[in-house]
Amino acid sequence: MSNHPYSPRDLILPDFTPNLRSVSDVHAWNGAATFLVMYGIWVLAGRSSLKLSKTDKWLMIWWAVSGLIHIIHEGYWLFSPEFYKDKSGNYFAEVWKEYCKGDSRYASRHSAVVGIEGIAVIIVGPASLFAVYAIAKGKSYSYILQLALALVQFYGSTLYFITAFLEGDNFAMDRDHYYKYFIAQGGTWLLFPALIIIRCWKKISAACEFQDQKKAKFY
Amino acid sequence: MSNHPYSPRDLILPDFTPNLRSVSDVHAWNGAATFLVMYGIWVLAGRSSLKLSKTDKWLMIWWAVSGLIHIIHEGYWLFSPEFYKDKSGNYFAEVWKEYCKGDSRYASRHSAVVGIEGIAVIIVGPASLFAVYAIAKGKSYSYILQLALALVQFYGSTLYFITAFLEGDNFAMDRDHYYKYFIAQGGTWLLFPALIIIRCWKKISAACEFQDQKKAKFY
Repeated sequence: MSNHPYSPRDLILPDFTPNLRSVSDVHAWNGAATFLVMYGIWVLAGRSSLKLSKTDKWLMIWWAVSGLIHIIHEGYWLFSPEFYKDKSGNYFAEVWKEYCKGDSRYASRHSAVVGIEGIAVIIVGPASLFAVYAIAKGKSYSYILQLALALVQFYGSTLYFITAFLEGDNFAMDRDHYYKYFIAQGGTWLLFPALIIIRCWKKISAACEFQDQKKAKFY
Repeated sequence: MSNHPYSPRDLILPDFTPNLRSVSDVHAWNGAATFLVMYGIWVLAGRSSLKLSKTDKWLMIWWAVSGLIHIIHEGYWLFSPEFYKDKSGNYFAEVWKEYCKGDSRYASRHSAVVGIEGIAVIIVGPASLFAVYAIAKGKSYSYILQLALALVQFYGSTLYFITAFLEGDNFAMDRDHYYKYFIAQGGTWLLFPALIIIRCWKKISAACEFQDQKKAKFY
């Protein structure tokens, strides 16, 4: 008999401790914190000396929210291999115990997941917050920075899914958590980065073309 | 008693068949083919209507050689899970049986390696050959295409190393093959992409800055 609810059933997690909070409690705190960050960035962006477009404000929100998730949530996980033993009701431990219902590789510390998350925590997280600043200040390198970060997020998420599928796609405890957590939440990190890649690619191509044309004219 | 020379010793490879060719034979064919491609690209680049810089010619060589390796060598591997059983002396089977001395995950089909190689074969390979064309024709999108491809190569290689280290770094049969194949050959796919990322980043930043300045002046 397994002492945890996760799949596969033969996964061994000594001293696993179930969550103290309810599922809706964990989601509510997450939702409230996300909403606060979104609201704060929207207000800050409105005060910028530049007239930022709505798209730019939403991009600042994406990089702030995803950057903070990389640093805080994923950072906690990266350095807490025994989070599933937590008995104190630590909020982040409870978030990850809940997410493991959709992908137990976060409990078993699958090497590809640790690698992808390690890069996200150490490189992508801080650089995402820097992208918020770059957009707010209208820096020339803002598009290329966003393109690079979105590519890393997109590639990481692609590998996240491919490795699960190649190993039998049996890491969710039921269909419900499979779709809600693994597919929908994981898919978020494919969808938004893809949109950002397309937008930045167009912007950068246009700038390179502009330069080529001007230089062809004058020199 | 294991029927293969690879590490770890408990890796099971039914019907493993040792190479028919000598090690130097396998390396010689690889070296000759690489040299031919390099020479061909250098000659072709010299005939371009644009006056291509030496750096651009070397970049064309990188994308041609690495694109062909992605498509041909890695493509063969991706679709030949039983290459280690080959008794016919197939050149590509022998290349991979030799490389497995430095990293047996190519024989055991480690999921992270299959994921990284799958993306390399299907996306990066064809797009790398397209980059050769884009450089030769002086296309405006050449820098952003190269940046995106180099980032994917760099990130893929980083994960290639991280996953091996996390799983005990015990996939080479001896120190000699560890350094020659795993570290040196694997490291090639970190070094050159890193140089290309830095160069393209500078070029694109300059173009974006140029556009910002011109537009600030005229509008």
